[in-house]
Amino acid sequence: MKTLERNITIQLVKQGNILSPKGFKAAGLHAGLRYSKKDLGMILSDTPASCAAVYTQSVVQAAPLNVTKESIHTEGKIQGVIVNSACANACTGEQGLKDAYEMRNCAAAKFGLPDHYIAVASTGVIGEFMKMDKIKQGIELLEPTADGADDFEHAILTTDTVTKHYACQTEVDGKLITMGGAAKGSGMIHPNMATMLGFITTDANIASADLQKALSEITDETFNQITVDGDTSTNDMVLVLANGQAGNSQLTETHPDWPQFVALLKQTSENLAKEIAKDGEGATKLVEVNVTGTQTKQEAQVLAKTIVGSNLVKTAVYGSDANWGRIIASMGRSGVTFNPGDTTIAFGEITVLQNGVPAPFSEAEAKSYLEEPTIIINVHLKEGTAAGTAWGCDLTYDYVKINASYRS
Amino acid sequence: MKTLERNITIQLVKQGNILSPKGFKAAGLHAGLRYSKKDLGMILSDTPASCAAVYTQSVVQAAPLNVTKESIHTEGKIQGVIVNSACANACTGEQGLKDAYEMRNCAAAKFGLPDHYIAVASTGVIGEFMKMDKIKQGIELLEPTADGADDFEHAILTTDTVTKHYACQTEVDGKLITMGGAAKGSGMIHPNMATMLGFITTDANIASADLQKALSEITDETFNQITVDGDTSTNDMVLVLANGQAGNSQLTETHPDWPQFVALLKQTSENLAKEIAKDGEGATKLVEVNVTGTQTKQEAQVLAKTIVGSNLVKTAVYGSDANWGRIIASMGRSGVTFNPGDTTIAFGEITVLQNGVPAPFSEAEAKSYLEEPTIIINVHLKEGTAAGTAWGCDLTYDYVKINASYRS
Repeated sequence: MKTLERNITIQLVKQGNILSPKGFKAAGLHAGLRYSKKDLGMILSDTPASCAAVYTQSVVQAAPLNVTKESIHTEGKIQGVIVNSACANACTGEQGLKDAYEMRNCAAAKFGLPDHYIAVASTGVIGEFMKMDKIKQGIELLEPTADGADDFEHAILTTDTVTKHYACQTEVDGKLITMGGAAKGSGMIHPNMATMLGFITTDANIASADLQKALSEITDETFNQITVDGDTSTNDMVLVLANGQAGNSQLTETHPDWPQFVALLKQTSENLAKEIAKDGEGATKLVEVNVTGTQTKQEAQVLAKTIVGSNLVKTAVYGSDANWGRIIASMGRSGVTFNPGDTTIAFGEITVLQNGVPAPFSEAEAKSYLEEPTIIINVHLKEGTAAGTAWGCDLTYDYVKINASYRS
Repeated sequence: MKTLERNITIQLVKQGNILSPKGFKAAGLHAGLRYSKKDLGMILSDTPASCAAVYTQSVVQAAPLNVTKESIHTEGKIQGVIVNSACANACTGEQGLKDAYEMRNCAAAKFGLPDHYIAVASTGVIGEFMKMDKIKQGIELLEPTADGADDFEHAILTTDTVTKHYACQTEVDGKLITMGGAAKGSGMIHPNMATMLGFITTDANIASADLQKALSEITDETFNQITVDGDTSTNDMVLVLANGQAGNSQLTETHPDWPQFVALLKQTSENLAKEIAKDGEGATKLVEVNVTGTQTKQEAQVLAKTIVGSNLVKTAVYGSDANWGRIIASMGRSGVTFNPGDTTIAFGEITVLQNGVPAPFSEAEAKSYLEEPTIIINVHLKEGTAAGTAWGCDLTYDYVKINASYRS
């Protein structure tokens, strides 16, 4: 039980996932896009769900994003999400758009839904065409069930080494609201907006426009604050489906429990984001950077993300080397103005720079701390009272290995 | 003999260096800052030289930059440059500034020059104090000679694997003007302005203000267009010394041979920049990205530098994998607006994307091309007629190895 400001209480659902909320089913299977792993997944709500989404801010956007946008904009409702891995269907021109529509419409036909009740997402190699025969055959075989979350989670993975899921609950109007999520990384992770694929389900009753407000509000401090390699995908998308089956009175910004709902969405998103960072390609450690004492929240977020995204900081963390000079050097190029002479840096509780002056510390102690699976870097400035956090991972031999041969 | 626009002819000086121009001497020795390698170097002009400089745009600037700026601003003349490796003298507070002044003043005393005729540069680990006793002992032993260029080039290296030097000549007023350069990389290379340390000497006759104009003009398309790892150092500096011994009438922007001189400086800078990129930490290949068909030169430069700086592109080049999807994906997040449907991408002469549509190409042929030591990526858009180039290198296991243990 975690208590947040305003007495918001959120309860973790142990081993929870996208099927923890009421009224959702899921499936995942091997359609033949990948050699042997699952590659086609589906989430299905029993009833049409309010839907909100955020997408990559890349100039280059994959075809499925256009199709999903169109679906959502038609009525603000989505009942099914069809997802494939192995092929991104990006930079595939008119054929790619045609394929994305066909994928949507096949899924709609299979489950007897209007075309615009289906959202489409793809992830994988850019610039290759979809194997539509396999996609269509696969869709025919999809049978979402109440225990299909694990299959779905596997079907959306690319270079990820583990599935990513989370669920939590809170009370609204005295009704229990549950939220669950699934996500995949793990390269091209450096969201300008979303990053990767994220799917969040909830049984809360909320209109699409309000759901979109909540999602937009928390994206900048959750999904947008992780980075694995500085590259933003053409396919990034986070979808939230709310099917209203919890029976609460409809949530709006003026509802007394609105902060409760936003906190639920933030906690789900932050946990999925951290899981993605932790499973970054080749990563051995999760790195969290907290920056405090800036004039604005945005400055703190930019500083935190610049530090956590620095190749030199990432390799130092991999080597368990308390090389704090690389931290302040990356801050210097972040575009944020600050006084280096007022800067304090600590690895966890071990202060290495105090008000701009190198602080004596035990190298052995620092090295020992940096060998842990989660590294926290704390930076404090004296410019103001704002704060921000970002998450990332170390840069390892395996990152190079994975990416020197991903397509082949 | 390379012919540029406006009939500018520039002659390469084979195996040339900072001592190719008239009236310069250099030295380099082991002062004891490093275990056994040379770590202290000096360039000395026979006479006071006009001086121009560009510095890191990082908010965090090392002490020697402040001292060098003060020296140059006093009279616009520099006669000697003292440089150490092993210690960056950055984030060292008041003590660091005091040390940088002392280093300058000791060098001035040793050669009987006014303090402000000496420029100071440092490179190495951030956040450690200078071993001033060794620096001072070393300065006493420096004896610049006409064949000390190689010693100097070695003394300024850190993780570099080779020395970097270049020289070329042109005619101004019928007088032969020679220009030479030395530089060091090879991590924290991602200039906002300079990057790394670069030292350029010339015997041209030109006032400091005009020299500064020429340097500022060419920096954005040379030193600022290379990247090794996206990190900008606290110590980046490029210094140009012009001692006037070639005997030409003083060069100004209205001098008919001004373009000749700017081209000479550009060629020297571009070659030093490319040598730095090629010797990037762990690099096995030089990557050149040419972008054409943008509305502005700056857009082309941003696109080229984003592509060449992408970890995913860099690892694909290392793996000789023609994974062009990563190229267009990085372009998409560059901040530059363009139509993906009008984009053409080629590895050398091998077109892989033609007007936004995947082009059929021989994977074997592409792989063979990508195994060469220099890889050229050509990107053409249809937004305008501007063009830009950037240089970088591949991302390899050795980059990780070098940086996971640099400080230790």
